[in-house]
Amino acid sequence: MVPLGILGGGQLARMTLQAASRLGIDVVIGERFPDSPAARLTDKSIVFQHGWEDSEALDALAGAAKVITLESEFVDWRVLESLERRGVRVRPSPACVRVVQDKLLQKRALARAELPVPPFREIADPAALMDAGRELGWPLMLKARRDGYDGRGNIVVNSPNDAEAACKSLGWPERALFAEAFVDFERELASLAVRGTDGGIEQYPVVETRQDPRLHICREVVAPAELPDEVRTRAKDVARAAVEAVDGMGAFGVELFLVRDGQVVINELAPRPHNSAHYTIEACWTSQFENHARAVLGLPLGDTAMRAPAAAMVNVLGSGTEGITEGSVRDALEVRQAFVHLYGKLEVRPGRKMGHITALGATRQEALERATTAAERIRL
Amino acid sequence: MVPLGILGGGQLARMTLQAASRLGIDVVIGERFPDSPAARLTDKSIVFQHGWEDSEALDALAGAAKVITLESEFVDWRVLESLERRGVRVRPSPACVRVVQDKLLQKRALARAELPVPPFREIADPAALMDAGRELGWPLMLKARRDGYDGRGNIVVNSPNDAEAACKSLGWPERALFAEAFVDFERELASLAVRGTDGGIEQYPVVETRQDPRLHICREVVAPAELPDEVRTRAKDVARAAVEAVDGMGAFGVELFLVRDGQVVINELAPRPHNSAHYTIEACWTSQFENHARAVLGLPLGDTAMRAPAAAMVNVLGSGTEGITEGSVRDALEVRQAFVHLYGKLEVRPGRKMGHITALGATRQEALERATTAAERIRL
Repeated sequence: MVPLGILGGGQLARMTLQAASRLGIDVVIGERFPDSPAARLTDKSIVFQHGWEDSEALDALAGAAKVITLESEFVDWRVLESLERRGVRVRPSPACVRVVQDKLLQKRALARAELPVPPFREIADPAALMDAGRELGWPLMLKARRDGYDGRGNIVVNSPNDAEAACKSLGWPERALFAEAFVDFERELASLAVRGTDGGIEQYPVVETRQDPRLHICREVVAPAELPDEVRTRAKDVARAAVEAVDGMGAFGVELFLVRDGQVVINELAPRPHNSAHYTIEACWTSQFENHARAVLGLPLGDTAMRAPAAAMVNVLGSGTEGITEGSVRDALEVRQAFVHLYGKLEVRPGRKMGHITALGATRQEALERATTAAERIRL
Repeated sequence: MVPLGILGGGQLARMTLQAASRLGIDVVIGERFPDSPAARLTDKSIVFQHGWEDSEALDALAGAAKVITLESEFVDWRVLESLERRGVRVRPSPACVRVVQDKLLQKRALARAELPVPPFREIADPAALMDAGRELGWPLMLKARRDGYDGRGNIVVNSPNDAEAACKSLGWPERALFAEAFVDFERELASLAVRGTDGGIEQYPVVETRQDPRLHICREVVAPAELPDEVRTRAKDVARAAVEAVDGMGAFGVELFLVRDGQVVINELAPRPHNSAHYTIEACWTSQFENHARAVLGLPLGDTAMRAPAAAMVNVLGSGTEGITEGSVRDALEVRQAFVHLYGKLEVRPGRKMGHITALGATRQEALERATTAAERIRL
């Protein structure tokens, strides 16, 4: 079989590689530095020494794989186009990534498809932000259009007095911004949808994601989310339509806000496997990673149903800066029926996603308790 | 974490690597040729260009890993000793492998521990085989003491007239032989036991293994085996005692014959993960591969219980010699809830183990039907 190429060598690429390898599919990793978590799991990796535009590296990648996918939305769509000009297929398409990686274009595409998004405005300068506040009300959520993740690139702006400082803190005027009405949500939900080359979509259960309020990083996921049936259906329908609205292919994480009256609002799309669906590795018949690989390779999608009543995933975040040793995981491995994942990152940093734990249970509570117990026993 | 070394780069090393990688453990593969299935999943592999005795390669492996394990019983124990002299731990130990890799020494160790084995005799020449036939009765099972697998290295001898031809067909006088009384078994069972560095043992359920009568290769495995409780207990106890009798460490496959009256007789030990326990990847809380890695690294062993009522595994054997393409697996991937594993072997050969399918079910029959359906849809 022809190898699959992945731009990026972090944990999402690593777990996609692990899933592809089970199907006998080799993976070529392209990353800007050597020894990335995913590159260490293949004898075929390419270092982009001069950044993503490195034309020698792009040549090498296009020579090694016929289909190339991504693990993040941060590679510029023009790079993806230049890959396609080298005779390979990039999935999702450069046109799709162009829209998704610019959150303002993404919001416009979703709004055009009449999907529920918060009211938003392009913000050219602090004056525009003040205008937006008058129209949409304070506080506002100010966001960088590109390259934000895990809460970086976002800031809550409480009043017109903070407008200029807020714009500057996000990198304006070098960096383009937009603003959204602040959504006072009850809970955060997510739905992972996988779209095949034939346009067919398989969707995983709607889950509840809980963020660390201080770090703005996903802390835990509970699957399935506890929801009235009509809300669950609405969330699924919105997620599916969102992926169609941007002409997605492969795995797409759709982050949703559950607001009053059971309405859902789209927060963001991620054109790739997503932290909120790591639990699918053990809890579903086919993991998001395997289905992502199947989808971009044009293979039939697998069953997304859960094979346990409930599951929970807890992220393992770095606390200190010591390296990982056997001693870091020993105690966690003593928790029966908890699945320990470490990503092989060579450097521990406070708040960095180093791994995750998944547990299953007869109830959400049981699963979450087990996963939390194991996660707390990891010493990083 | 310090990398784990594995001697051998086939599917067992590959699946051990996949499991170790989930725990964030890097794996160094040592194999006699490049591009092996396991070596393709790591950026750290060492080619033993001059066979297993290649001292440069042994130096390199000992420099790259602190603990080294094996995926087969075919590396001479003296090589393992020479690795330990280089300052690493080999697990299972060279002394254990010395006994297990010579099936005559293995049988003697089991008999000394008063475990049920067929009566056996060392066979120095055809005359000794004729004597053995008089004592133990015909037919006899004549075996090479070393390097046999999947029925190769074994032959049934029906009468004294066949003695000389049989010895020669197995490579005598260059190759050392022994003979066992022919066991007229009802079924073949297997039990996978994992022994940690502290001597603690975790055991997987006793399974039924079914061989292809023509190819003498494991064709399918059904878990758990349908057995009266006392037989199941006896089989488990025998398997556990067998691993202790040879002072094993890590995963050990124990192949058993179920004979009349519910008695079990040990066929053979394999000092490594075993085909009969591939089903554990999806059907148990901790796979044999993860538990093997945990055991040899001195980490706590995981839960070996099944997380489904029944499971079945069907091997995917090569039929032609065409390469594998997406088209080879497309139809199999359409079977819902069947787990497809391909080993990434670059060359297809008739009868070669190319992959396997695992399916779960409410009943053994349901699991086996699903796995068989998917396996039959793979075109190799």
